[in-house]
Amino acid sequence: MSKIPYKIYLNESEMPTAWYNLRADMKTKPAPLLNPGTHEPMSASDLAPVFCDELIQQELDNDTRYFEIPEEILKFYKMYRPSPLVRAYCLEEKLGTPAKIYYKFEGNNTSGSHKLNSASAQAYYAKKQGLKGVTTETGAGQWGTALSMACSYFGLDCKVFMVKVSYEQKPFRREVMRTYGASVTPSPSMETKIGQKILADHPGTTGSLGCAISEAVEVATSTPGYRYVLGSVLNQVLLHQSVIGLETKAALDKYGIKPDIIIGCAGGGSNLGGLIAPFMGEKLRGEADYRIIAVEPASCPSFTRGKFAYDFADTGMVCPLAKMYTLGSNFIPAPNHAGGLRYHGMSPVLSQLYHDGYMEAVSVPQTAVFEAAEYFARVEGILPAPESSHAIRAAIDEALKCKETGEEKTIVFGLTGTGYFDMVAYEKFHDGKMEDYIPTDAELEASFATLPKVE
Amino acid sequence: MSKIPYKIYLNESEMPTAWYNLRADMKTKPAPLLNPGTHEPMSASDLAPVFCDELIQQELDNDTRYFEIPEEILKFYKMYRPSPLVRAYCLEEKLGTPAKIYYKFEGNNTSGSHKLNSASAQAYYAKKQGLKGVTTETGAGQWGTALSMACSYFGLDCKVFMVKVSYEQKPFRREVMRTYGASVTPSPSMETKIGQKILADHPGTTGSLGCAISEAVEVATSTPGYRYVLGSVLNQVLLHQSVIGLETKAALDKYGIKPDIIIGCAGGGSNLGGLIAPFMGEKLRGEADYRIIAVEPASCPSFTRGKFAYDFADTGMVCPLAKMYTLGSNFIPAPNHAGGLRYHGMSPVLSQLYHDGYMEAVSVPQTAVFEAAEYFARVEGILPAPESSHAIRAAIDEALKCKETGEEKTIVFGLTGTGYFDMVAYEKFHDGKMEDYIPTDAELEASFATLPKVE
Repeated sequence: MSKIPYKIYLNESEMPTAWYNLRADMKTKPAPLLNPGTHEPMSASDLAPVFCDELIQQELDNDTRYFEIPEEILKFYKMYRPSPLVRAYCLEEKLGTPAKIYYKFEGNNTSGSHKLNSASAQAYYAKKQGLKGVTTETGAGQWGTALSMACSYFGLDCKVFMVKVSYEQKPFRREVMRTYGASVTPSPSMETKIGQKILADHPGTTGSLGCAISEAVEVATSTPGYRYVLGSVLNQVLLHQSVIGLETKAALDKYGIKPDIIIGCAGGGSNLGGLIAPFMGEKLRGEADYRIIAVEPASCPSFTRGKFAYDFADTGMVCPLAKMYTLGSNFIPAPNHAGGLRYHGMSPVLSQLYHDGYMEAVSVPQTAVFEAAEYFARVEGILPAPESSHAIRAAIDEALKCKETGEEKTIVFGLTGTGYFDMVAYEKFHDGKMEDYIPTDAELEASFATLPKVE
Repeated sequence: MSKIPYKIYLNESEMPTAWYNLRADMKTKPAPLLNPGTHEPMSASDLAPVFCDELIQQELDNDTRYFEIPEEILKFYKMYRPSPLVRAYCLEEKLGTPAKIYYKFEGNNTSGSHKLNSASAQAYYAKKQGLKGVTTETGAGQWGTALSMACSYFGLDCKVFMVKVSYEQKPFRREVMRTYGASVTPSPSMETKIGQKILADHPGTTGSLGCAISEAVEVATSTPGYRYVLGSVLNQVLLHQSVIGLETKAALDKYGIKPDIIIGCAGGGSNLGGLIAPFMGEKLRGEADYRIIAVEPASCPSFTRGKFAYDFADTGMVCPLAKMYTLGSNFIPAPNHAGGLRYHGMSPVLSQLYHDGYMEAVSVPQTAVFEAAEYFARVEGILPAPESSHAIRAAIDEALKCKETGEEKTIVFGLTGTGYFDMVAYEKFHDGKMEDYIPTDAELEASFATLPKVE
């Protein structure tokens, strides 16, 4: 039996005590957020009505390499971290590949995903600022659940706008959030001006992330003592999520393992940005080289078919403009898309890195993703979230290439979460009712036409 | 900060390599299973049509102290074990108790509970015997899910009879089992003679565990190459589950911790029997003393209000008779009972130990259980299964007693699983629609009248 255990756990004393800010090592920094009206860069005071003060500092700071993790957040992390780095012995054996496969499993907490890493940080800073509560949006519900847990722990009100189609299809997610004391509103709602407008324009709409963001921001900025928090895309979120990559690297280093390929699923980029952070840092500093692969749904292909341009972060066009790979802020994946990762844009940090050639991206159709999910569940025992299964698909594909070539590559991928609340999608797959959807060039062109003109 | 970490993980090399058979240390052995017709003790050959051969040996062996865990099962265990022993620092702080609270968390695997420990063992032995498949019953679905996972891994067919009310209320559980390739039939069904009879006698019945057991046994004994497997009650199951207690004890010993009180929820006794095994062993051998507390639902109070007598294990009365604390094989908890642990009887091993004064038992009403569940979820971050929350309730009550007396007792309890598939029950609780139900003495007397007369 190999000396490397099935699961590598760090000791508490080996856990990271600072987040790593990847931007500090980027030669070309991510472009600044712009005011959607004036197209001027957003300053800290511009952002203050929307975000917590300390989070704004983290958002705008492209230079500080490490941010110390406050003691209270470390304490929270210790309830569910360190997360295991798992050697996928069973998967390797079943595939018959000479590749060595590892996955960082972030699903062993009640929120079911890595989102808790940033939710706890954001809730902590909001509480520290003396705020009463926070607002946010959630799609599949992982972020909303994570934020509810964090707010309950730190004693903050939590108001979640949940994309209507998810609210109706995932009553149990909603109920978990209620268990943690959050209020959950289906979006679009009549509670906001933007919600009223969207409902007037599109009476039958089942909502979108972009629309829920607009509503959450409106409530945060119009309610005293409230701010808005977001679970992905933003620089601050990638900073907090660097804990994933730092733990992964520490666990690999502990056993002298050097990965060849690092794979993460990408929606807004929170998991991918966190997982790759320290590895990308080495790559940027010329200390090591890795193949880094982002995996996205073929039905929402921001990296592989999007434009690198300034765009609105939300449908309501009230948020700052971000320079990112985007499909246009009006883009909504087809209703039959069940694989998550539905956001039209992508983290500006990752977008810049991809643009500068530091990483690759692939897109995969959802039936292939669910095939990989079921295969993985049966072999490795963990029922993966559809989002995470994009990374599984790509990891299996790379491992099968190794089988052909005989190369003993070391593959590390991020298993961001569990699929307990995604059984409707699994059922569709089992019943043969799941279809692949790939947007046509014409559809994308129409969506690109909505991009704002920024000089 | 204390030197004891939030989570104690054993290394793989510290994992138990043998199961501990508590019966070897019992002065009064559990009474033998009896043939329901002749009332003669069941021999290995009597049991052979129902159970796998090697499992029968384990079932009947009251003397062998340790059974080596086969390499293949150890390998399976390593996918999700060792499980963490968690120091509930946050819970202690919130309660303001001087007590030190630990919980052994068995929910970090896709089946969501400890059931996988025995499911993998039973599937392994069935495969080793060259069988084609196994049948079983499941109520809430944890056991069925665990068995599906184990059968998928070892390459066995898996046929699950799921209590009809759960089948209908928990479609996602069903879908997880399908993900692992199991066939799931709502019980009672028309597929068996006993199912047909029950449906004829009680056309509107929503089923019961006892009835599902009867159906599963009938299919196993009438289908070549099939045997029946069971997730609780039996001696073999407690043997496999001893891995919980052995890990718990090893983790405590590693830090020199000696518990005062050990608490487990009790339905059929699989978790409780496993958790307490090595501690009870010390107690039986006079090497140490512990308070050991079984916690059961007030709506299904086998220990606290049942009779210690021979009874049928199943409603259909086809299974062997077992001597145990029982409410009568016709007893079914009120439909509003949402807390799990619905079985009318109790493990014969635990029943004997309770009868001989080696452990205590308490019963708790379900609203108090869900209060504890929600409290725990908010403080410790883990959303517990209703079953597990019985132990949480009792642990909190003991910790609050310590707060009154100032005693710094060390409390260990078993957190058997997660509640992701129990959100309907949580919703009822949140909406104030959950009621407590306690059977009247007259109801219990009526049920006791069905006990078989055994000389």
